[in-house]
Amino acid sequence: VNEADFLRRLRTLPLHPGAAGLADDVAVIRGLVVTLDTLVEGVHFLAQDPAGDVAWKLLAVNLSDLAAKGASPEGVMLSYPLGDDGWDAAFLDGLAAALHAFHCPLIGGDTVSIAAGMPRILSLTAIGTGEAVPRRTGAKAGDRLWVTGTIGDAGAGLAIARGAPGPAALLARYRRPVPRLAEGRVLAPHVSAMMDVSDGLLIDAARLAAASGLAASIDLARVPLSPALVEWGGEAMAAATAGDDYELLFTAPAGFEPPVPATCIGEMLAGEGLSLTYRGEPRPLPETLGWQHDARLR
Amino acid sequence: VNEADFLRRLRTLPLHPGAAGLADDVAVIRGLVVTLDTLVEGVHFLAQDPAGDVAWKLLAVNLSDLAAKGASPEGVMLSYPLGDDGWDAAFLDGLAAALHAFHCPLIGGDTVSIAAGMPRILSLTAIGTGEAVPRRTGAKAGDRLWVTGTIGDAGAGLAIARGAPGPAALLARYRRPVPRLAEGRVLAPHVSAMMDVSDGLLIDAARLAAASGLAASIDLARVPLSPALVEWGGEAMAAATAGDDYELLFTAPAGFEPPVPATCIGEMLAGEGLSLTYRGEPRPLPETLGWQHDARLR
Repeated sequence: VNEADFLRRLRTLPLHPGAAGLADDVAVIRGLVVTLDTLVEGVHFLAQDPAGDVAWKLLAVNLSDLAAKGASPEGVMLSYPLGDDGWDAAFLDGLAAALHAFHCPLIGGDTVSIAAGMPRILSLTAIGTGEAVPRRTGAKAGDRLWVTGTIGDAGAGLAIARGAPGPAALLARYRRPVPRLAEGRVLAPHVSAMMDVSDGLLIDAARLAAASGLAASIDLARVPLSPALVEWGGEAMAAATAGDDYELLFTAPAGFEPPVPATCIGEMLAGEGLSLTYRGEPRPLPETLGWQHDARLR
Repeated sequence: VNEADFLRRLRTLPLHPGAAGLADDVAVIRGLVVTLDTLVEGVHFLAQDPAGDVAWKLLAVNLSDLAAKGASPEGVMLSYPLGDDGWDAAFLDGLAAALHAFHCPLIGGDTVSIAAGMPRILSLTAIGTGEAVPRRTGAKAGDRLWVTGTIGDAGAGLAIARGAPGPAALLARYRRPVPRLAEGRVLAPHVSAMMDVSDGLLIDAARLAAASGLAASIDLARVPLSPALVEWGGEAMAAATAGDDYELLFTAPAGFEPPVPATCIGEMLAGEGLSLTYRGEPRPLPETLGWQHDARLR
């Protein structure tokens, strides 16, 4: 049973109406926006990543799902496997820093004991409040496709975490991502669809297009790269297929001027699938569009 | 860092007001009752327990926390580690059966991939709605201590799951517990404190007493044992220190007549700690009052 099959079978179970058929990253339950993301050592983070950074990332990836729905964090529930004393203490320090940074209180949770050397599985449930909750499914043909911030920094940061030379600023984008909470709140009432970029710009754009029943076209020359990434030697195709950006990907009608810094990278079209250009010239799709859930850091 | 230390340090983090200082099994967030419980293979369930029963139990233990607060399930979020195909398929069948049985829809969740042979860590977040939410902290000196149903059947069931001879009805109490949702709703407006019995009657009674700043006295002769347990050879002390009962433990003023089947097993007193009697004669406390979180099935 792979993830897609499992998800298909979950959809045959009794679903809450607010689950929207499990087609989005969040559910809306009695006005609250809820999401759950789990991180596995060796899959979503490296065994050598500092525990405090893992705590930060666990919170950030969940709040990024709230950000993509224009929601504000109400609080989080933690499932934590107690193991090594030093790791646990550093985890708590990183969690405290992230809760303070994102103005997000702890609601509760559960701790369990695991045997030494067992890979950690950490899970967080985030609850938020939001008014306009944009889905992945609402894009229209002719809408433009936008992304906040810059893409690919975290992918370079992962290479640096694994030993490649490179600046601390890129490493920080991988280890301590900052969810676009303020941007999400400002954008939510205006966009036709929105999601966060977690597995790679191309794969997430393809998912948004599929959820909306459309095709998407992206011009690689317009993918926003940071000066630090360009100096490091990063290029657009690698950036657009790396994961962990936690930027917001959204669609809006032609002529829309985003009220926050964002870059128009393409458009939504009738049809299906993803197509790429470079300054208008067609380019072939890469072999993989981004992180597949079964692959990640393996 | 053991669980108690970790919990103490979690209490120094920014907490949601609805978390009640992490002193209860649930939090109340904008009118919703939320709880999270995690099960670990080899700790909370046996590797040889059928996958469908593990799914059932994962749902039941979370809904039991809602039941103890008089709440009705609104839905659940699942964190699931994909592994073996046959196990995953049987898990889904058991989850479907339990969701139907408890009228509880799925809200969403996350799946992750784990390496073959890695112990499973499964986590569930349950969300419910409730009006009167009794805490552990509200018992008063002079209140009587009550418990629903019968105690110790699941402890016998665990022994049977490990190979001891015994009837299927006791095994079922261990593998497919039924949360006392209806009883919880009926009791909630009338009780001074309520919690579920998950780690053992004595240890959970001691926790309720401590949370309320009181002592508790229990008469072992009054601990309700099922005819099947008595026939199996079960006795009160073993029953009162076994886990996984998922009955409701509650306190109410003397003279209260519970509107659901329940047994008065003792009373709350000024002071602290737990004391035992047998037909009024003092009895010493056993060496362990129930499951400690670091021990369970190890």
